[in-house]
Amino acid sequence: MTGTQVSVIGSGEENAARAEEVGRLLAAHGCTVVTGGLGEVMAAAARGAKAAGGTTIGILPGERLADANEWVDYAVATGIGHGRNLAVVASAQAVIAVGGSWGTLAEIAFARALGRPVVILEPGWQVAGDGIERAESPEQAVDLALAHL
Amino acid sequence: MTGTQVSVIGSGEENAARAEEVGRLLAAHGCTVVTGGLGEVMAAAARGAKAAGGTTIGILPGERLADANEWVDYAVATGIGHGRNLAVVASAQAVIAVGGSWGTLAEIAFARALGRPVVILEPGWQVAGDGIERAESPEQAVDLALAHL
Amino acid sequence: MTGTQVSVIGSGEENAARAEEVGRLLAAHGCTVVTGGLGEVMAAAARGAKAAGGTTIGILPGERLADANEWVDYAVATGIGHGRNLAVVASAQAVIAVGGSWGTLAEIAFARALGRPVVILEPGWQVAGDGIERAESPEQAVDLALAHL
Amino acid sequence: MTGTQVSVIGSGEENAARAEEVGRLLAAHGCTVVTGGLGEVMAAAARGAKAAGGTTIGILPGERLADANEWVDYAVATGIGHGRNLAVVASAQAVIAVGGSWGTLAEIAFARALGRPVVILEPGWQVAGDGIERAESPEQAVDLALAHL
Repeated sequence: MTGTQVSVIGSGEENAARAEEVGRLLAAHGCTVVTGGLGEVMAAAARGAKAAGGTTIGILPGERLADANEWVDYAVATGIGHGRNLAVVASAQAVIAVGGSWGTLAEIAFARALGRPVVILEPGWQVAGDGIERAESPEQAVDLALAHL
Repeated sequence: MTGTQVSVIGSGEENAARAEEVGRLLAAHGCTVVTGGLGEVMAAAARGAKAAGGTTIGILPGERLADANEWVDYAVATGIGHGRNLAVVASAQAVIAVGGSWGTLAEIAFARALGRPVVILEPGWQVAGDGIERAESPEQAVDLALAHL
Repeated sequence: MTGTQVSVIGSGEENAARAEEVGRLLAAHGCTVVTGGLGEVMAAAARGAKAAGGTTIGILPGERLADANEWVDYAVATGIGHGRNLAVVASAQAVIAVGGSWGTLAEIAFARALGRPVVILEPGWQVAGDGIERAESPEQAVDLALAHL
Repeated sequence: MTGTQVSVIGSGEENAARAEEVGRLLAAHGCTVVTGGLGEVMAAAARGAKAAGGTTIGILPGERLADANEWVDYAVATGIGHGRNLAVVASAQAVIAVGGSWGTLAEIAFARALGRPVVILEPGWQVAGDGIERAESPEQAVDLALAHL
């Protein structure tokens, strides 16, 4: 593989700026940024990564590559709906959650079921357990994620 | 469909007695009990349902019907690993969680993403949100779940 | 498990009468009839099974139990779209194909990848390989399928 | 997206040389080569693409990125077993089949169910239908695939 893959998960337009900064920092550290390929946090993280010259993968729920946002370099159309949440986190060596709703919680849970380290950027899901860390800033989130690699 | 389908999710042998009682009560109320088809909480809930003359469905992660526990009447071998957690909760009109680890949390999250009501039997996952209720006993868990139907 | 599970796959309203007869015969032999839970061949096979007093399982592509046709006793909502075709054949000890288009061919292929015997009722997909038999009538299709169990 | 994505599917070590040439030609034409990420035809197609300076995506059945062959640039671990065959073809604008067994036939069928053009390189699966073309050489296979884009 070309480099380390880190997934940025989450949702909510109000979290876009923080997600963009996370994506930018990951790319600056040489990581490939993996997302769910759609809007809000997913688009922002990819946009940030591209702004820093990075590479992005979008793992889509549907069957159409055209659903990927414009900052996705390589799109995977899984066709399996919410089932793709498993692929989004399995395809990363570490996961950073920025906001998000139930789908994000499913991804956090799957990440831990698979042993992937998870960093939740505040404010985020209130869920505790082995392998979950919390970060106060995008910088800290990326530092904590990279410390596992 | 023959009747109301309620999923019982969770894991941990220490939760088997409570899960068995949940399964028994659901069957006594005429519900079909859906589980992930394997051991511990899944087996106990199905065993309880069968003891009360109920019907059980086991939705397995693997490709082999023979993996189903002996209290599964109808087995579905999905072949999609953890992705089957989505099917376990999508196939129910309400979900009751008894203990459980990360896979159970993914199921709780998917259930809510799909709008299914969730009842967490204490002690259980500490996760709050719209559509999640907590119960102190198997009886209360079943009553809360059935109140949504 | 309660009994032998046999999947009836296919599509095309012109194949409904033959599929209904296949479903009826399978139920008369005590088999549980598994289908994809939607219309045409899937509905006809389930209708036939119910007419003979049998039991039916419908494994749906979507997230809604209400999508199941009225002859489905127990519905599984997988939420994984075409990915559910894998579950339809993995959940059977033998598979009978009645007409069908590309989705049916994917199911035939998956069935053989998993080692499930397949019977194609004429006229049907022209695909040959180890473990695929062809039948001239619903009676012969069911006899060939049951001979493997 | 960075460029056109074309999937190379199939199996069988005896088909490796032809698959490698297909991968090389696709990369020479600027296409990103998508495969199932494992061995034989999948590895050969990726190896050919890398030899021509191309980019490769491997969409794996398992949960481990480390399962990807060494010529995969970007790996996606779907965790859904054979269900990943759907993603392999949905993630391409055209599909080229080189040899292969039942899994490959499932991919051909899914590709057509989703409307993706399929080119089968001789000798290959004997299956006919709208949207399936046959090629006598890797050059012809790539030309036919690219003519659809």
